[in-house]
Amino acid sequence: MHTVDCAMTADEQAIRDLVFTWLSATKAGDNDTVLGLMAEDAVFLQVGQEPMRGRAAFASAQQALANVDIDAKSAIQEIRVFGDWAYCWNHLTVVVTPHTGGAPIKRTGHVLSVLQKQNGRWAIVRDANLLTAVRD
Amino acid sequence: MHTVDCAMTADEQAIRDLVFTWLSATKAGDNDTVLGLMAEDAVFLQVGQEPMRGRAAFASAQQALANVDIDAKSAIQEIRVFGDWAYCWNHLTVVVTPHTGGAPIKRTGHVLSVLQKQNGRWAIVRDANLLTAVRD
Repeated sequence: MHTVDCAMTADEQAIRDLVFTWLSATKAGDNDTVLGLMAEDAVFLQVGQEPMRGRAAFASAQQALANVDIDAKSAIQEIRVFGDWAYCWNHLTVVVTPHTGGAPIKRTGHVLSVLQKQNGRWAIVRDANLLTAVRD
Repeated sequence: MHTVDCAMTADEQAIRDLVFTWLSATKAGDNDTVLGLMAEDAVFLQVGQEPMRGRAAFASAQQALANVDIDAKSAIQEIRVFGDWAYCWNHLTVVVTPHTGGAPIKRTGHVLSVLQKQNGRWAIVRDANLLTAVRD
């Protein structure tokens, strides 16, 4: 049992690291790193929008974010791993500030992600993002 | 491999049946049946609201729905099963009509659910509901 417990903890830690890397790479504008954290066929569900299907669609959407600063705070609520699959429930607060000096937009809410270990590395496969704009 | 394929299909069918039963029982006001389709510690994430934690909290919230008709249409986008765990990606349109004759409210959007097979029966464990109100 001890070995199993350790393996679970290592996977959970790897998924925590993925979330941390995602947010810090997003803040740094390092799009390639973000794209490397999702499956080729990842799907991102957002409120009031069509699903974003696949890494290429995500990359296109990222280009629209070249002129903003993105600062996110994450509070992971739960990670459960079952073999090569896992889910992560996170609470995010994201502040987007235009470089041109417009007012920042703050969005907050929960995220439920399904992850798969692919070639030994965890990747986001499906992601339901419930964030909505809030007043500060 | 054939046996494994059949088992997967049976699980997928069981999860489709769960979704169908959930919606038809909700329409019929059969709260006990709905509660039987979720894990005791199920968590429901909704847009702009605190998470609904546990079957008892869900049951309390259902009481507020005693005076409305709920009619939902479901378009399951994907079911993937991995052993005793699965996820289901669904698109829902829900119309809530007050018995008192007020205007119906239509909400639409995606749902990402994580399910676990518990004592041989699938149950919803985590659920991210991205539905928002739309004009008809």
